[in-house]
Amino acid sequence: MNEFELIEKLTRSLPANKYVVTGSGDDCAVLDLGLPDKLLLFKTDALVEGIHFRTSSPPEKIGHKALARCLSDIAAMAGTPTAALITIALPKTFDAAFIEAIYSGIGALARKHDVAIVGGETTTNPERILISVALLGLVPRGKAVLRSGAEAGDAIFVTGELGGSFASRHLEFEPRLAEARWLIEHFPIHAMIDLSDGLAGDLRHILKASRVGAELLTTSIPISRAAKLASKVESSAKPPLLAALTDGEDFELLFTVAGKDAVPLLDAWKKEFKTPLTCIGKITAGEGITLRDKSGARPLTAHGYEHFSK
Amino acid sequence: MNEFELIEKLTRSLPANKYVVTGSGDDCAVLDLGLPDKLLLFKTDALVEGIHFRTSSPPEKIGHKALARCLSDIAAMAGTPTAALITIALPKTFDAAFIEAIYSGIGALARKHDVAIVGGETTTNPERILISVALLGLVPRGKAVLRSGAEAGDAIFVTGELGGSFASRHLEFEPRLAEARWLIEHFPIHAMIDLSDGLAGDLRHILKASRVGAELLTTSIPISRAAKLASKVESSAKPPLLAALTDGEDFELLFTVAGKDAVPLLDAWKKEFKTPLTCIGKITAGEGITLRDKSGARPLTAHGYEHFSK
Repeated sequence: MNEFELIEKLTRSLPANKYVVTGSGDDCAVLDLGLPDKLLLFKTDALVEGIHFRTSSPPEKIGHKALARCLSDIAAMAGTPTAALITIALPKTFDAAFIEAIYSGIGALARKHDVAIVGGETTTNPERILISVALLGLVPRGKAVLRSGAEAGDAIFVTGELGGSFASRHLEFEPRLAEARWLIEHFPIHAMIDLSDGLAGDLRHILKASRVGAELLTTSIPISRAAKLASKVESSAKPPLLAALTDGEDFELLFTVAGKDAVPLLDAWKKEFKTPLTCIGKITAGEGITLRDKSGARPLTAHGYEHFSK
Repeated sequence: MNEFELIEKLTRSLPANKYVVTGSGDDCAVLDLGLPDKLLLFKTDALVEGIHFRTSSPPEKIGHKALARCLSDIAAMAGTPTAALITIALPKTFDAAFIEAIYSGIGALARKHDVAIVGGETTTNPERILISVALLGLVPRGKAVLRSGAEAGDAIFVTGELGGSFASRHLEFEPRLAEARWLIEHFPIHAMIDLSDGLAGDLRHILKASRVGAELLTTSIPISRAAKLASKVESSAKPPLLAALTDGEDFELLFTVAGKDAVPLLDAWKKEFKTPLTCIGKITAGEGITLRDKSGARPLTAHGYEHFSK
C-alpha cells in the first residue's frame, strides 16, 4: 500500500460537523466559523530529517522550508496566512543552536508574511529531527480555489520553472501568496494546487477532483536550469522534461482558467510580476494526461513522487 | 538544556500580529478573528512511539490518547473543540491495519465530542510512529481561562485522582470538556491548566504565570489507586504522594477560584458530576509550592516530568 492508497483508506469516513466546508482532499481544509466575509483555512505539513532536509543544510533554510511549504498550501487556496504552531521532535542530545537557527528561519519568513507564531511544542524523536507546522489562513468567502473546479476547455497555467528542485532551490523557494491573491482578484480561477509531488502527480489531483483530463504541450513546459544541468552532468539523471513532469518540491502554482481568459491573464500578469507564468496545455473532457509534441499525442503514465513507493 | 529551557529560548521573540490574544505559554493559543462572541483556540500535541505509547498497546487506544490529549488542552481553556488535522509519520514498512485502527480510535473520540477530522498528512519517520494532532476550538469571548489569573487567597481544586497514570489509565482518559464548560458557566474561574506534566510541575506553570505561590495540604491530595498499588507491589516505585505530585499524564483539570466560592462550587459540582473534585490547598502571596501536613510546612522541590531530562 502506498501513501495515497493509505490516505484514501484513512479518510474514507472521517467525522464532519457544521463547520466543515471542505475536509480532506484539497490543499487546505476550509471551515466556516461564522465570520461574515471570510472562511478559515487549516493545514499541517511535516519535514523529516534525511527525507525532506539534511542536517548539513543551513538550519535557517530548513526552518524557512518548513513554514514555506505550509504557506504554499495557503497560496494554493488563494488565502492569506494568519497564525502557526510549530512542533519540533528531536533527539535527546540536541544542538540547541541548530534548533534555534531553524526557529529563526521560520520566524524570518513568518514576519515577511505577517504570520504570528503562537507557540507549539518540543518533544522527543530519538533518531532524527521532525518539524511539523500547523497553519491557519483566511480567504474571502466564496473565493477559495479548490482542486475540483477545472472544466473542459480551460487553459492550464504554471508559475516559475519546474524540475530539479531538490538539487537546487527547495530550501529557498518563495511561496506564491501575492500571486495567488492577485489571480483571484482579477480573474475567475477555476482550480488551483501547489506543486509538491511533481507536475504530473499534482495535475492528476486536479483532474481526479474535477473529473476531467488534460493535454500538455511538451514544448511549453518550463524546465528549470537545474533540471537541464543535471541531465548534462549526470548520466543517471532524468531527462529534463521527465524531471519537470515528475520531480517533487517545486512549490509553484498550477491553475486553470476559462480559455477566453488565457491571453488577457498572461498579459496582465506580465505587467504585475517578474515570476514566469506559462500556459502548458488545456483541460479536456477525457481522462488522464496526454502529452502532445510534433510527433503526435501519447498518454503520460509516469507518476509524481510518492513517499512510500520509493 | 532541558525541554522547558529550550522552549523558553525559542519562544522569546516570536512574531505576533493583530489576531493574537494569547500566544505561546498557555494550554492553547487564543486568536481573535473578528467573530462577535467567540475567540479561536489553536493547539498541537504529538505522541511518539516508545515514549508516549508502545505498539503493544491497542491501536484504537493510542488514537484515543492522541486526540484526547489535545482535547484536554481545549478543556483547560474552557473551550469547545471544533476541527482537527492528523499527522502520522511512520516507517516505510507500516502495518496498514494498525494505522487504520489508530485512526478509528481518533474518529470514535472525535464523534463523541462533535469534532470534525478535516484531513492531515502521512509522512515517513523511518524508526517509529509519530502522531501529531492540530486542533481548533472556540470559547465564548472573555471566558477563556488562562494560567495567569490565580490570586492570593484562591482555593486550588483538582478533578479526579492523581498518579500512576502511565501504568493504568493514560490510554483511556476522558478529557474534562463538559466539566470545564460547566465551571465557567457557574463560577468565575481564575486560572486553569490540564495536568500533563504532573501536579507539581503544572501548578508551577500557574504560579509562574500568575506570580503567586501555593500551599498544598498533603492529606487532601487525591491519590489514585494505581499509584497506591504500585508502591505496595514494587519496592522501587515512588511513594504514593510523590507519584500524585510528580507523575505525568493525569489529564485532570487543576484550577483556582476565589476562596468564598470554594464551598458553593464543591456543593454544586457534586450535584452535577460523579468525577471527584478536591480542594487541595490555596494560593499564597509567596513563591513556589509549600506542602503542609501535621508535622508542619516544607517547600516542595521535586519537579514534574520533563521530556529531555530523563
